[in-house]
Amino acid sequence: MIIQLENKISAERLEKIKNQVSKMGFDHNLVTTQFANYLVGIGKKEIDLRTIGSLEGIEDIHRVSDQFKLVSSKWKLNQTAVDLGNGIQIGNGHFGIMAGPCSIESEEQVIHTIDHLKKNNIQIMRGGVYKPRSSPYSFRGLGLEGLKMFYKHCSANGIKIITEVMQVSQIDEMIKYVDIFQVGARNSQNFNLLDALGKVDKPVMLKRGIAGTIDELLQAAEYIFSNGNEKILLCERGIRTFEKAYRNTLDLNAVAILKDKSHLPVIVDSSHGIGIRKYIEPMTLAGVMTGADGIIIEVHEEPEKAISDGQQSLNYEEADLLYKNVRTILQVKRQLN
Amino acid sequence: MIIQLENKISAERLEKIKNQVSKMGFDHNLVTTQFANYLVGIGKKEIDLRTIGSLEGIEDIHRVSDQFKLVSSKWKLNQTAVDLGNGIQIGNGHFGIMAGPCSIESEEQVIHTIDHLKKNNIQIMRGGVYKPRSSPYSFRGLGLEGLKMFYKHCSANGIKIITEVMQVSQIDEMIKYVDIFQVGARNSQNFNLLDALGKVDKPVMLKRGIAGTIDELLQAAEYIFSNGNEKILLCERGIRTFEKAYRNTLDLNAVAILKDKSHLPVIVDSSHGIGIRKYIEPMTLAGVMTGADGIIIEVHEEPEKAISDGQQSLNYEEADLLYKNVRTILQVKRQLN
Amino acid sequence: MIIQLENKISAERLEKIKNQVSKMGFDHNLVTTQFANYLVGIGKKEIDLRTIGSLEGIEDIHRVSDQFKLVSSKWKLNQTAVDLGNGIQIGNGHFGIMAGPCSIESEEQVIHTIDHLKKNNIQIMRGGVYKPRSSPYSFRGLGLEGLKMFYKHCSANGIKIITEVMQVSQIDEMIKYVDIFQVGARNSQNFNLLDALGKVDKPVMLKRGIAGTIDELLQAAEYIFSNGNEKILLCERGIRTFEKAYRNTLDLNAVAILKDKSHLPVIVDSSHGIGIRKYIEPMTLAGVMTGADGIIIEVHEEPEKAISDGQQSLNYEEADLLYKNVRTILQVKRQLN
Amino acid sequence: MIIQLENKISAERLEKIKNQVSKMGFDHNLVTTQFANYLVGIGKKEIDLRTIGSLEGIEDIHRVSDQFKLVSSKWKLNQTAVDLGNGIQIGNGHFGIMAGPCSIESEEQVIHTIDHLKKNNIQIMRGGVYKPRSSPYSFRGLGLEGLKMFYKHCSANGIKIITEVMQVSQIDEMIKYVDIFQVGARNSQNFNLLDALGKVDKPVMLKRGIAGTIDELLQAAEYIFSNGNEKILLCERGIRTFEKAYRNTLDLNAVAILKDKSHLPVIVDSSHGIGIRKYIEPMTLAGVMTGADGIIIEVHEEPEKAISDGQQSLNYEEADLLYKNVRTILQVKRQLN
Repeated sequence: MIIQLENKISAERLEKIKNQVSKMGFDHNLVTTQFANYLVGIGKKEIDLRTIGSLEGIEDIHRVSDQFKLVSSKWKLNQTAVDLGNGIQIGNGHFGIMAGPCSIESEEQVIHTIDHLKKNNIQIMRGGVYKPRSSPYSFRGLGLEGLKMFYKHCSANGIKIITEVMQVSQIDEMIKYVDIFQVGARNSQNFNLLDALGKVDKPVMLKRGIAGTIDELLQAAEYIFSNGNEKILLCERGIRTFEKAYRNTLDLNAVAILKDKSHLPVIVDSSHGIGIRKYIEPMTLAGVMTGADGIIIEVHEEPEKAISDGQQSLNYEEADLLYKNVRTILQVKRQLN
Repeated sequence: MIIQLENKISAERLEKIKNQVSKMGFDHNLVTTQFANYLVGIGKKEIDLRTIGSLEGIEDIHRVSDQFKLVSSKWKLNQTAVDLGNGIQIGNGHFGIMAGPCSIESEEQVIHTIDHLKKNNIQIMRGGVYKPRSSPYSFRGLGLEGLKMFYKHCSANGIKIITEVMQVSQIDEMIKYVDIFQVGARNSQNFNLLDALGKVDKPVMLKRGIAGTIDELLQAAEYIFSNGNEKILLCERGIRTFEKAYRNTLDLNAVAILKDKSHLPVIVDSSHGIGIRKYIEPMTLAGVMTGADGIIIEVHEEPEKAISDGQQSLNYEEADLLYKNVRTILQVKRQLN
Repeated sequence: MIIQLENKISAERLEKIKNQVSKMGFDHNLVTTQFANYLVGIGKKEIDLRTIGSLEGIEDIHRVSDQFKLVSSKWKLNQTAVDLGNGIQIGNGHFGIMAGPCSIESEEQVIHTIDHLKKNNIQIMRGGVYKPRSSPYSFRGLGLEGLKMFYKHCSANGIKIITEVMQVSQIDEMIKYVDIFQVGARNSQNFNLLDALGKVDKPVMLKRGIAGTIDELLQAAEYIFSNGNEKILLCERGIRTFEKAYRNTLDLNAVAILKDKSHLPVIVDSSHGIGIRKYIEPMTLAGVMTGADGIIIEVHEEPEKAISDGQQSLNYEEADLLYKNVRTILQVKRQLN
Repeated sequence: MIIQLENKISAERLEKIKNQVSKMGFDHNLVTTQFANYLVGIGKKEIDLRTIGSLEGIEDIHRVSDQFKLVSSKWKLNQTAVDLGNGIQIGNGHFGIMAGPCSIESEEQVIHTIDHLKKNNIQIMRGGVYKPRSSPYSFRGLGLEGLKMFYKHCSANGIKIITEVMQVSQIDEMIKYVDIFQVGARNSQNFNLLDALGKVDKPVMLKRGIAGTIDELLQAAEYIFSNGNEKILLCERGIRTFEKAYRNTLDLNAVAILKDKSHLPVIVDSSHGIGIRKYIEPMTLAGVMTGADGIIIEVHEEPEKAISDGQQSLNYEEADLLYKNVRTILQVKRQLN
């Protein structure tokens, strides 16, 4: 049960509503976000909405039978658009293209990538400065100094930044330089990190776990929302299966289902998904057809020389074609019945 | 190594070639199909093609490093079109739509389905008469009599039939009434059945195993080809993973890879794949974008009353829209660079 | 619902019972095995056993809510012992050790293996003569002639044979020379083969599918039982998962569950399971602790020279130790509370 | 390459060794733990140990071809025993039994559990105070106050505590009250947490990820070791597969392999593994046979009333029997050849 409350509800009215929710046999969780107040009722009883609907301070009440509540499409029929500022949005009809290298490697690389993005009219650059690596001896990214340099060039060019945050203590130091915090697959159930990202007013892109279920992804998003942050993007990036002909099984089924079960925008990451350069384009176009609201693509001036993930990075020419084809397909898709 | 031989090669010339192949350290397998003669060399030695290329009776020689040989795109750069007769082809630019019920249930059902297909200009009807079922107590299909009835109506209307064959002994009795033999996921490594289907001159659609790898699918196809039948369609129908939000994980990554690694046409079965009615359309359209040469769709006049698989069958109206959208998308895809 | 019928029930009494079962809203399936007659009722209604229990010809009635019926432990509380003749049994306290090469390769090999088995007091030899292989170009076994040779030596030495049957047409020619028909993982849902094996009076060992569920294995066994053959062994041989550090994930969880849910004996195949020679012993001993009624082990005089599966075959010395340790552990296990 | 250095190596000698390692084409990582100094060389070149072995300050040099280095058994042939103090060790012949509730729920519960443990001569109690939960609305544990209460009773009774740490900032506040830090499956690749746990001198039990590979588990352990902490326990707790008859697929194959590839102790968690009460015992005994150095078991006075994981918790009576049988089996296993 989700109760949408008046924006500036009085303590007294709220108390009455909480009491009534308790009486009905539900636990209540008050959620205050950038945009609204909600009382989330957790329980399995059948609800007779009339017993509560008439109380003052309530704008609307919804039954939500899913395990996840605030991120469910059962109560919010309109799709969410996440606003990045400067008129850039993702979701609810706004398609977001994010592109850039796996890791930020050098200032020159950032400058060249921005050129490439601007030529293609792309407004969001990806690039890791904190890199989760299986081995402790691998390159772990340029860190905060790299991020500041990355930010300097992007902000001067009107480009938004998406980059991965790996732990709670990084949030404060990163927040000035980041437009979208990315939560990686390995942190998809790092609940402390999700709690903390729920307490800042910045968009968060949450990747599905390496073998995470669709339901777990939505419940992880619920952590962020229920802590107060509604600006959430979901990301399908491939799951781990028995098949070894590719890196991961990009699960486009999940995109179709997430678009149905949640109002949040869904991003497809074909680069980490199938993980093989020559198949990135067909999988990305397929992702568009399943209803994705955006894509995130690894691009590198010279993929062969990339410090990480070169085998799944497009070069600029390949990427130019991909963007063009994505836009063509998107137009056609929107005209289908 | 694949050696394409002269069509009517003399025993003497063949012997010389075999000897040379043996001398090079390869096992040789002579394959005679509807269309050509091949000598397939199995071995891991480096080949100096000059030591054999000048022998009489050889049309062409190719190195093929894959485990699968004759089905590989390494030697046959042109994609295969499988010919169903009456000008109906699948592959190499010809897109095939197959639709119909999971099980053939009644004469009335066949008649109505044919009407539906003809209205949509569809020339291939699916429908099972031998049904593999997990439980021995489930409905197992109308059998041969059902197939004859199915055939009577289809042939009268110019509709081709695809239906599942479950064992070797059924091939002879079915062959007159079938245009494409389907091998189901549970029989994808029933090697005796594959051997036998390699010995008939009928198209075979081979489904990927329930947890079959892409490589295993191609090697299963190699069984059919190496026994003499080049008319093979590959079918992606979803794999078994940890995710339970849908029936199977339709693996569109596999479509992109199969189209690259093999010259054979690839069919997408979204119905058995995601297995949930409302997601069939987006997954099918996505399949088109990954390069599929055809689709196979479960359609039922009243899905709620279907004996099997009703939850994944479209009704006629939903199917009408799907066909239309598939054709629209296909047009656009062909115009992409 | 399973109704155990009188052994020589009259047609009239049977008819009355069937009618009553139909009236109760159940489909009925008459099953006649080597040992007894059963009427299996399929349906989901609640049953009041009094409405039928008093009819003549009924020995006992049981509710069985599982999808599988006759193989369920819900009706047959005593565990099944499968009788191989000459006092050799597996199940219900009789532990069966089966050992031998992956493939029968030569007469000498058979003779040496029998020696090895006799020294270890082992009465069942494994060895494939029809080999399912992923590639059509691999060695496919010595076939029927190999089986006859295999049989000649085994029967002369009091050794029972377990070997794989791959298709229905092989059953008749093999039956004289086989003591246990093995159904391989790739044929675990070859329903025609299961039907046919249900019609012979020979023990069948049914392997779990490559990604087969426990429930599917039990339903596959139900095919055999419901066709008339109660002599069934279940075999856990590893499942396909994401992990690539070993060949398959030997799933000992399944052994514990199968022993609980079914009355049939369960065999553990560690050789195909983990698939790495040095880990066969600990996995086999662990299998004993989960309640297995037997093991099947690949042994080869010179594993390095085996035509197939050498990397997972023990040499004689390793096998000697394994048998000894299995027997030690088994003794201890039987004395636990 | 792992170079074991003199304990108090001079800066000068170290410099010379580093230079030589660099010259050989390797990156070097100096690791200083509670016990020793190591220089870990990362690279793929062939090494001629003579070119470096004669330098002063080197105690021993080892080639380690695995991705993981310090946790590999390739250089450290003796198994590691992790010392918990008061003569309690795990590994290298010391078997550790850890038992207790999933979550610490109340003071009474702690007292009763300690009684149960003492009766069974068990010296380590498990119990979560910070609980990772899929849903933000679930019970998340009693937190630090709960831990202090837990510690008060355990320390008074000579019982060691193992409990989960979820984020870096908790380490300092927990460290006084914890004897083993547990890293949960969802944090198995939370590299910042692993880094931080490498910097404290407390044992860490690291659980395998939900779909983590054996290799990833060992590389995660390498994070802890390479940061300076050698006191590591590995824990197999079940992986995510297609099978739904149980909670997770407890992968005992992994135990056998981990014991071979690493010198670290391995703990089996059957409770989270198979996750069904009546199968905990056979799986635990099987775990002992695969070479486990310890077990961790969920026990609850009244499993039906447990706040979390009741369905996989043993009651005291069941647990008494389990401990007894584990000890019996362990004795027998140690006497096997």
